[in-house]
Order: sequence, then structure tokens, then C-alpha cells
Amino acid sequence: MELTKKSKPQMDADKHRYGRGKRLTRWVSRPFSRTLSDVCSSASSGGFKCFFEVQPSCCLRGVGVFPSWVGHAALWVAAGCLASSICNAFGQTSNSETNLRWRDARELIIEGKGWPDTKDSYDRLPARAEKLVRQNVWNLGHDSAGMCIRFVTDATTISARWTLRRESLAMPHMPATGVSGLDLYVRGQGHWHWVGNGRPAKTIEEKVLVKGLKPARRECLLYLPLYNGVQEVKIGVPQGAALEPADPRPAGVKPIVFYGTSILQGGCASRPGMAYPAILGRRLDWPTINLGFSGNALSEPELAQLLAELDPAVYVLDPLPNMTAETVAERYEHFVRILREAHPGTPIEMVENVEYADGKFVEARQKRFAASNAKLGEIHKRLTKAGQKKLFYVSAPSLLGNDGEATVDGTHPTDLGFVRMADAIEPALRRALKSSR
Amino acid sequence: MELTKKSKPQMDADKHRYGRGKRLTRWVSRPFSRTLSDVCSSASSGGFKCFFEVQPSCCLRGVGVFPSWVGHAALWVAAGCLASSICNAFGQTSNSETNLRWRDARELIIEGKGWPDTKDSYDRLPARAEKLVRQNVWNLGHDSAGMCIRFVTDATTISARWTLRRESLAMPHMPATGVSGLDLYVRGQGHWHWVGNGRPAKTIEEKVLVKGLKPARRECLLYLPLYNGVQEVKIGVPQGAALEPADPRPAGVKPIVFYGTSILQGGCASRPGMAYPAILGRRLDWPTINLGFSGNALSEPELAQLLAELDPAVYVLDPLPNMTAETVAERYEHFVRILREAHPGTPIEMVENVEYADGKFVEARQKRFAASNAKLGEIHKRLTKAGQKKLFYVSAPSLLGNDGEATVDGTHPTDLGFVRMADAIEPALRRALKSSR
Repeated sequence: MELTKKSKPQMDADKHRYGRGKRLTRWVSRPFSRTLSDVCSSASSGGFKCFFEVQPSCCLRGVGVFPSWVGHAALWVAAGCLASSICNAFGQTSNSETNLRWRDARELIIEGKGWPDTKDSYDRLPARAEKLVRQNVWNLGHDSAGMCIRFVTDATTISARWTLRRESLAMPHMPATGVSGLDLYVRGQGHWHWVGNGRPAKTIEEKVLVKGLKPARRECLLYLPLYNGVQEVKIGVPQGAALEPADPRPAGVKPIVFYGTSILQGGCASRPGMAYPAILGRRLDWPTINLGFSGNALSEPELAQLLAELDPAVYVLDPLPNMTAETVAERYEHFVRILREAHPGTPIEMVENVEYADGKFVEARQKRFAASNAKLGEIHKRLTKAGQKKLFYVSAPSLLGNDGEATVDGTHPTDLGFVRMADAIEPALRRALKSSR
Repeated sequence: MELTKKSKPQMDADKHRYGRGKRLTRWVSRPFSRTLSDVCSSASSGGFKCFFEVQPSCCLRGVGVFPSWVGHAALWVAAGCLASSICNAFGQTSNSETNLRWRDARELIIEGKGWPDTKDSYDRLPARAEKLVRQNVWNLGHDSAGMCIRFVTDATTISARWTLRRESLAMPHMPATGVSGLDLYVRGQGHWHWVGNGRPAKTIEEKVLVKGLKPARRECLLYLPLYNGVQEVKIGVPQGAALEPADPRPAGVKPIVFYGTSILQGGCASRPGMAYPAILGRRLDWPTINLGFSGNALSEPELAQLLAELDPAVYVLDPLPNMTAETVAERYEHFVRILREAHPGTPIEMVENVEYADGKFVEARQKRFAASNAKLGEIHKRLTKAGQKKLFYVSAPSLLGNDGEATVDGTHPTDLGFVRMADAIEPALRRALKSSR
């Protein structure tokens, strides 16, 4: 730190000038700027700019440098802190603690997988689906959307190593944290609460997810990437800390299975925990399975057959944004009937097409979802009339609100949109769960 | 489209198999998959995966291919639509209309600039600030955060060309749409409403922001990038369409000036319109100036002097996340006094440090904002006691809510967090505006 080399008189003089409301003299302020920039550059990767802020832990270290004139040097300590804290707070440097204990996530609990017989560990479809579904659906099945690792630890620092399938870490309208990142929640104070995430800059990544946790033994939930796949995930804790599988869910708790589009897969959440099935899973404290296939929720009968192999508490169907009114008429009822033949008593929640944010001003966009939703309404009415029970229905207007602010591109919700979708879907889902008991 | 070459009997046979709930035969489904993938690859750029969905406009074109057996071929028309609509809906291909009329944004109204005497057209600080402020602050002044172009048009398609200053288009936790994108709103139905945005894939970009708008003469608001600068912005409309500067704001309407950190600059909004000063500007229908300097809102007196040159309706001060309790004690009151000496009657809204999402479980993070906020509370009390009027105060707990879901990294709000911040800051801001009249 260049700043620590300053002599005391110089510091006082600076402070005096500063206190009078004048700017820092150029020859003093420039090195400070450069120091900040340099650290920033070295901390960031791939040409990304990094944010930074002050962290108290490094301030305490900084104070030690100026033992006799702490008061006067406060500004400079703060300045030093700013620079040295960049890596801590936002650069997310790789773990420097070499004596961590690493445990493969497969030794813990993987939740959100519908089938055990997968080709790769974190696939969402069974191996035999490769010959059953379209290539696009199969490929998307490698994305780890909705999967999470459940474990218990008393570590105050939790790290992760993860190996991604694809080098494309982000999308233009969805950040790397959501596409390829990890997202950590802990159970506490009666809820699941966010504590940290892992921002990827490369396909083989290692990051400290959180440090300085108040000491306690806690249950953790680590969400895997939404739009990338993982080949390996390891959790790292300091030597001597516990790291064990979480307790199984209570007996009789069957997962909720979600089927849908890019939206359901989590586009464009800022991080994996903000896809709406994940939000609902935490709110209900219930296991969920995300079968969102970006651009490919065509409600093919082979998908219905696969879903029918599962034995969920509830099916939530949200494929309309990938369909037209015609394909809804053609396929949707058939899809429901396949599920119902296999599971006559399992509740099904039918979700309308979100109302696109630009629909109020672009007629074609408005017509698009209105036509599909009208068709879905007819199907729901017909099925109910035909005696089908436990069919729940979520209307479009409640899904994203009507202020037009909930998406990044008119179609794909941001975290704002996903919270609104969860709000809209939750009441019917709670009724559905109740009816499934 | 390979699919259009199919003979009618083959289509019927496929349909029949499909209707029975069997999967598509492999030799039929594979070409479909490949066609989709190919189009997807060619539409996406930089290795990004693109979303797609069905658009009705292309379906109408598609139907023309099968005039005599529209009913039976519905599935295949839909499939064709899916592929051909990729570019329309989400690939955001460059404008193919060569006969657009382009107008430089500087001929329209640029709002959100505090000073006219800037070095480059879209700088946020005056040219002379280069010698007054730290290098980091000066550099960040090139980012176009908070600036928007106001214009009127009756075009149903609106395009934009923009040249970015930096090649780094995104951050790991903030997508390119927010960092370097454009964001278009129109005035209608009594509000500003989102209609489209421009997703950048390169530094010199051209995109159709919206097409198919219901015909009308409308006022538009085009936000510029939050974490990149622009060298040039042009608006394109079809030949013959009007494209004019919007009417000036009503006489006597002075802008609201916001000063703060990376958060205020808009990190990590999904698009420029979702930074909280922008949200508030639309809600109040009021011009705003964003002086957020990522990591550099140190409340230096030279910044206060610059802010004091402006004559705003209200100052909103939100620098605490870049400060410590010590620097707040050292500088904040002085900062306020500089503003008050220049503008004794101008309301000032003091915003506490957001409560970090991980603060409930990481004590150091909780202490960090609690200490700064305690200090700010003391300053507010002291100033009020000393007779300072029109000081408004926003407490931290209301800013991001208490569910821990509103940020991407514990500190930086997502669109969810920004809407909550706007909700929290709006009431005091309305009172402040009222008191300024």
C-alpha cells in the first residue's frame, strides 16, 4: 500500500487541506487513484470492472499501521481500506486458505433431480431420454436449473469449487451469476435466508461463498447454475468444521414438479435462487424439480410420458410462452391426460402465459398471449366440466403485475418479475398441496 | 426452411403419430432440432445462447406455405415459426430496413446532464472537473448513467445506433443490457411504460428497439448505459415518420440531483431504466441527474462544491456504502453545509446505508452499515437542532426489505431491490419536492 509509506506530517497536512473543504492536491490524490485502479484491475477478471466498498475487518488491520495518530489519519485509513477491501468484498478472489476440507456434493444431498438414472450426475433428464426427446430438450437437460445441494455445517467460511460444462458464462440480458453461478442460502430465524454466492469468471472456478458467519451449526442450500451445466461441485470448509448431508425431508413429502419454458428455467434471474420455482421451494420449504426447457416447452407427449414417471405432490405446468393458441389446442389437454392417467389424484396447476411487458403498446405481442390464454381457459373449463378434480388455475394478469417493469426484455422476468410470479402462483400451489394430502 | 419441403402425406403421418402420444420419429425430429440450433447459432453473438418463442406475425407468413391443409399442418407451421421467429424476438438482429432516417440524439433533448460544458457530449461532469476531482471520479463521469434522450415520434418501429466507450460490455453480476444497453419507455395511459431495449454485443451497435407499436404520436424516453459511456447515439425511424425533440419540462421544474455510490449509479439493474433514480424520475415525471460514482462516493468537498453549482429542486444524498462511520463523521456534515451555503432553501434527502442482505448472519457486515447509519442519524439530529430546515431522512430498514432477496451480491440491488428502494425514498422525496415550491 503506497499510502502507508506517507510520513505523519504529510498526512496531517493533507488532512488539514481536506478539512478546509479544498480538494486533495493532485500529486497526493493521483497515487491513491492509481492504487485503487491497480487493485481493481488485478482483482477483476475478463476485463470486468469491479465494485468495491469499505469493510470493517480490513479497517481494523489498517488502524494498526498508524498507532499513534489514529484520529488524524482516519481519512487515510479509510482510503487504504477502500483499496485493500476490493478483493474481499467484490472481486471475490479465489480461496487463499489452502487447508480446507473439500467434499464432493454427491456425498451430500442433491435435491431437484427427478431421476437417479442420469447420464451425468447433474442432468435433469434420465439417460434413456436421449432417445426419447428432441435434441434441444436433451441438451437443455444438462443445465442444472433447480438443483441444489443440501448440507449441514458449523463452518463460518464456506467455499465452493465447480466445473461448468460450457464456456459461455453469461447472456446479454442475464448475468454470469444467474447463468453459471452458485447461490447459497442458510436456514435461520424460521426461513431460508441468502448469505452468499459464487460469481464465475472461468469454467473451473473456486470461490469463497461466505465468510464471517456467526458461529452456529446450520442447514445450507446451495443452488446450481440455471443456464449452464456442472460436471463437478465441491464444498469446502475449514479443517475441523462439520460438513454433512442435511436431514432428509420429512417422510411423505413428495417434490413439486414444474414444467415450462425459459422463464421457468430461470431466465433472467440474477442468481439461481431467484428462479420462481426456487423462490416457491423456499417459501413452502418444499423440494422442487425444475423442468424448464428454454424455447422448447412444446408440451410434446414424450415429455408428458417422462413427467408421468415421477410421483410428485403437484404438477405445475407453464409451457405457454413456447406455444401458440393452435399448439395449446392441439397438445395441452393431451399432456394433462397423460399425467392424469398415471396419477389420477395428483393436483395440477395450470399457469397462463405471462402478459408481455410491451403488450399494452404492441398489439401483436398482446394478441399472442391473449389467444393462448383464451385457449387454456377453455381447456380448463372443459376438463373441469368433464369431472377432472384438483385442477388449479393461475390467470395471467397477476403474474407480472401491470406496470411493465418486471422483465428485462418484455418476456423474461427479472428478480422483480420472479417474486411477483411466485406471489401469484403460491396461493393456488398451497391449495394444491393441501388437496394432495 | 427444411420443414416446408415435406410432402403432405408425410406431414399427415407425422401428425397421426404425434396425436397418439408417441414421440416424433428420430429422422423427422432431428432435422427440426438442427434447424432450430442453426438459426439460434447464427442469431446469437459472442457465443451467447438465445431464447426464442413463437410470434404471431411470422405464423401468418408460415400459414401461407400450406394453403390447403392448414389444420393438419398446424404443428409444423408452429415449428417453422419457432425457428424463424428466433431472430425477431430474442436474437435482436440488426436493422434490415435500409431506408431509415437517423437523427443524432444531440438534436433531440438530452436529460440528466448537470452541466452543458462537458468534454464529451455524454459526460456527467463538466470539463473543468478533470482538474478538481480524483481520477476515478473523473473516469466514472464518462459513464452515461441517468442520462436519457427525450423525443416525440409517430413511428411504429424505433431503432438506435450507439457507440460505446469501453469494450467491456457486462459485469459478472450485471448483464450487458444494464451495463451498456439502451432502454426505451413511452408515455401513455398516464404513465411512462417500457416498450423495448437494445442489447449490445459490440461497441458499435445498431438494434431495433421496438417494432409494431400501435400507431400514435408518442413521447419517448431512451435511457443510456449505466456502466459504460457513449460517444454517439442516433435514433432511427422509417422515412416519413416524425422524429422531433420532446417538449421542454414545464417552466420552473428543476431536476432532482442524486449523489451516491455504485448502487445509485445503477448496479446491478437489469436495464438502465431500473436504476432507482430513473424509477423515481418516471414515477414523479420529473427530470433527474444521476451522480452515482461506483466505489467512489467519498463525499469529498470538491464534489459538494460541484453539486452546489447546480440548482436542483432537491438533493438526494446516498453515499454511505462507500464510507465508514469515521468518514461519515468527518465529511458528511461538511458536505451538507457546502450545499446549504449555496442553496439555503433547497431540500436535502439523506439516505441511510442499505442493510446488506447477508447482515443477519455476518456480523461484520451488519456492524458496517449499523455504525454508519448511527452516525448519519446523529448528524441529522444535530443539523435539525441547529435550525436546518427541509432535511428529509430515509431509514435503512425500509430500503431493501428484510427478506434478504433484493440484491445480487448482498450489497447491490437487483430490479427487485431498486423498486423497493424507490418505494422507500419516494414518500420523503414527494414531501421534499412539495417543500421546494
